[in-house]
Amino acid sequence: METKIVSIDLDVRSYDIYIGKALLFRLNDLIPQDLANKTVFIVTDKNVEPYALNVQNHIQSQGARRVEVKTLPAGEKTKSYKYYEEVCGWMLENGLSRDSLVVAVGGGVIGDLTGFCAATIMRGVPFVQIPTTLLSQVDSAVGGKTGINTAQGKNLVGSFYQPSAVIIDIEVLQTLPKRELLAGYAEVLKYGLIRDRDFFEWLEQNGERVCNLDDEALAYIISESCKAKAALVQADETEQGARALLNLGHTFGHALEAEAGYNQTLLHGEAVAIGMVMAFDLSYRMGLSSEADLERVEAHLSAIGLPTRASYIDQLATNVDRLLEIMRRDKKTKDGKMVFILVNAIGEAFTSADVPEDLVRAVIRDSLGGEEKAAQASTNAPSLITPFKTGMKKRWKSVFSSQA
Amino acid sequence: METKIVSIDLDVRSYDIYIGKALLFRLNDLIPQDLANKTVFIVTDKNVEPYALNVQNHIQSQGARRVEVKTLPAGEKTKSYKYYEEVCGWMLENGLSRDSLVVAVGGGVIGDLTGFCAATIMRGVPFVQIPTTLLSQVDSAVGGKTGINTAQGKNLVGSFYQPSAVIIDIEVLQTLPKRELLAGYAEVLKYGLIRDRDFFEWLEQNGERVCNLDDEALAYIISESCKAKAALVQADETEQGARALLNLGHTFGHALEAEAGYNQTLLHGEAVAIGMVMAFDLSYRMGLSSEADLERVEAHLSAIGLPTRASYIDQLATNVDRLLEIMRRDKKTKDGKMVFILVNAIGEAFTSADVPEDLVRAVIRDSLGGEEKAAQASTNAPSLITPFKTGMKKRWKSVFSSQA
Repeated sequence: METKIVSIDLDVRSYDIYIGKALLFRLNDLIPQDLANKTVFIVTDKNVEPYALNVQNHIQSQGARRVEVKTLPAGEKTKSYKYYEEVCGWMLENGLSRDSLVVAVGGGVIGDLTGFCAATIMRGVPFVQIPTTLLSQVDSAVGGKTGINTAQGKNLVGSFYQPSAVIIDIEVLQTLPKRELLAGYAEVLKYGLIRDRDFFEWLEQNGERVCNLDDEALAYIISESCKAKAALVQADETEQGARALLNLGHTFGHALEAEAGYNQTLLHGEAVAIGMVMAFDLSYRMGLSSEADLERVEAHLSAIGLPTRASYIDQLATNVDRLLEIMRRDKKTKDGKMVFILVNAIGEAFTSADVPEDLVRAVIRDSLGGEEKAAQASTNAPSLITPFKTGMKKRWKSVFSSQA
Repeated sequence: METKIVSIDLDVRSYDIYIGKALLFRLNDLIPQDLANKTVFIVTDKNVEPYALNVQNHIQSQGARRVEVKTLPAGEKTKSYKYYEEVCGWMLENGLSRDSLVVAVGGGVIGDLTGFCAATIMRGVPFVQIPTTLLSQVDSAVGGKTGINTAQGKNLVGSFYQPSAVIIDIEVLQTLPKRELLAGYAEVLKYGLIRDRDFFEWLEQNGERVCNLDDEALAYIISESCKAKAALVQADETEQGARALLNLGHTFGHALEAEAGYNQTLLHGEAVAIGMVMAFDLSYRMGLSSEADLERVEAHLSAIGLPTRASYIDQLATNVDRLLEIMRRDKKTKDGKMVFILVNAIGEAFTSADVPEDLVRAVIRDSLGGEEKAAQASTNAPSLITPFKTGMKKRWKSVFSSQA
C-alpha cells in the first residue's frame, strides 16, 4: 500500500506525518535528520518495547553513533514529574547534546512525556513521534501538545513543541488490544462530529471495517483524522481559538477520567465517547442541535462498542457536584467560566463560555443515571431527552467482556 | 528621570523593557495585561521579599481579584526540579488559569525558575519579569531563556519563553550587595567585548560611577545592555547562531562555577569575568587578537574589583582535566566538539568549534596558576602571555573583604 503523507504547515516548525505499512523499517527515508553518526534516545513502555527494539536496530544499522532505549512502565502514572526528571537525567547522563535525536515509540503517555522532555531538555532537541496506538496516531502525536499530569489534574504542565516527523506504521495496530482500538475510534469519530458530517457518515457505514483492522480503512481514517487535526492546529497552534474545538467531549470526559482515577476503569477515549454524547445532549437541551443527531451519535458509538453514559462505567463513584468542581479547574476556563464545545449539528461544533449551569447539571445527572431528577431540576430544558434504547448497556458490556 | 524603553521585536512575542525609578509603583501603566479582576502569582526569594510585597500591594490596589506571593529560599539550589514542581503545584492549588498572570520578583534564579513554570504550566501563561539584581536586569531577564539546573549541570532543562514585559526599577539596586553588583557588571562589560568597543571604552571611563550607583550611569548601562541583547535575540531567538555570542566567557565560566559548587565561593558574574579573560587569552594564543586587548580587558576587570583568574578563587579545588570534562558536557557542544566564543579584538566576537585542545588546556592551566607548565605543553602558542601585574590578586581580594 502506498504511504500517505499529511503535511503540517507551521512555518519553520512544519513537518510531515507518514501513514503506511512497514514504515519502521524505512525510518532512514522518513526521519529528516541524517542518522549517520547521530546519538539517538528512544523512549518506550513495556507494552511496545519490541517495536522500540526494532527501531533501535534499524537506526543503528544506518550508521548512528549510539542508540539508547529507555523502557518505562506502561500507564498514565508514567506521565509524571518523577519520570520527567528520570528521562531527562538519563539522556543527560548518556551524552545528549542539541544535535541528538529523541524518538518516542508508544501511545499518548510515552509521546506526551517524551515530547515534553525533548521540548525542554537543553531548551529543545529534535524529536520524532512513532505512535503505536490508534488514539495517539489520530490525536496526541499530532499537533505538538506535550506534557505531564500533576496532582491537580491531567496535562497541567507541558509545552507546545512540534516533532520533526510523525511516523505511523498501521501494522503496530495488529497487537493493540481491542478496547484500546475502540478508545482511539472515539477520537476519530470526533473529527466527523466537529466539522465533517460526510466523514461521520462514512464511519457509520465503515466503522466495522476499522474495528476489523482493514488496512485501507485504517489508513483512510488515520489520514483523514490527521488532516482534520492539522487544519485546526495550523489555524491556531497554541489553542487560542479554533483548536479548542478538538476538546469536544473533553470537558466532561476529563472530569469523568479524573474521578475514575486515570486507569483501566475508564480509558481516555471511552471518557471522550461519553463526553461527546453529553456535549450533544447539552446542545440539544440548549435548543441548538436536534434530538435526531444526539440519538445518531449515541447509536453509532454503541454499535461500535463504546460506552455512551457515565452510568455504564462500573466502579465509578462520583456525583454532579464533584464532576462540576473538576470541570471548573480545567485549563479551558476563562475568567472563571467553564468553556464548552457545543454543536449546532453533527459536523458543526463551536466554542461557548455561556452555558446555563443548571443544564450542565442536568446533563451530568442524566449521564450518571438520574434522568427523572434532572428533569425536575432543569426547567429550562426544551424537553427531556428520549430514553436510550434498552439493551444498549448490555451490548457495550458484552464487547468488553470478550477482551480479557 | 525619564523611563527608558527598549523594545524586543519578536513578532507576536514582542514586548518592552522599562528602565527607570519607582517603577514598582507604576506597574498598572507598564504591565500590558489589565490587572482588574486578574489572579496574579508572584514568586520571589527571601532576600527581596519586601519588594515582592510592595508589588503585591500595588497590584491588589489596582483591583486584582487575588494576588498570591510565594517566597522561596535564595540561592542557586532553588533552581531545581523540586521547586519547579512546588511552584507549579502552588499555582494550580490556588486557582491559576490561562488568563492568570505570573510575576517574578528577584534575580536570575527566581526569574529563570518562575519563567519555566510560566512557560509550561497549562503550556504557557502570561509572565512579567521584575529583575532585582544587575545581573538579571542586563542578562537573564531579557531574551526569554528560562530553566532549572539538574544533577548534570546548569540550565540543562528549560524553555525559550518570552515575558510580556520586563520592569527594571534601578532603585532596587540600592540594597544589592556590592559583590552582586560587580558580578552583574561583568555581564555588562561582555556586551562591549562582544561587539561594541565604544561601549567598552565608555565603561573604562565610567565604571566607577556605575559602582557608586549613579542613577544616570546605571540606567545607561542597563539600557545599552538590553539593547545589545535584544539585537542578538531578535536575530536568533532560539540560539542557532548569533545569540551564541552572548556566551562569551561562559564555556570556561560555567565549568568553574560547576567546580566551585554554584555557591558564594564563585558567583556567576565572577566566573564570567574569569572566563572572558580566558577567552581573550585563547584568542590571543590562536593568533586572533592582540596582547594589548587581553591586558586591557583584564586591567579593567581588576580595576572594577572583579577576579580575572581561577587561581584568585579560594577553595576552588579543580584541575585541567576536570574542567575540560565539564566543558565537553556543555549544551554548546556540536557533534561532540566544544564550541567557543573567540575574539578578533575587543568588540569583535565570533563562534568557533575549531579550537586546538592543547591551547584550551594551556589557557586553563594558566588561569589555575600554572603558567610555566602550560608553556611547555603548548608548543603551538604564539608566545607566552605577559605575566599579570603584581598586586592584582591582592587588589581584588581587598574589594571583597570590604563587603562582609
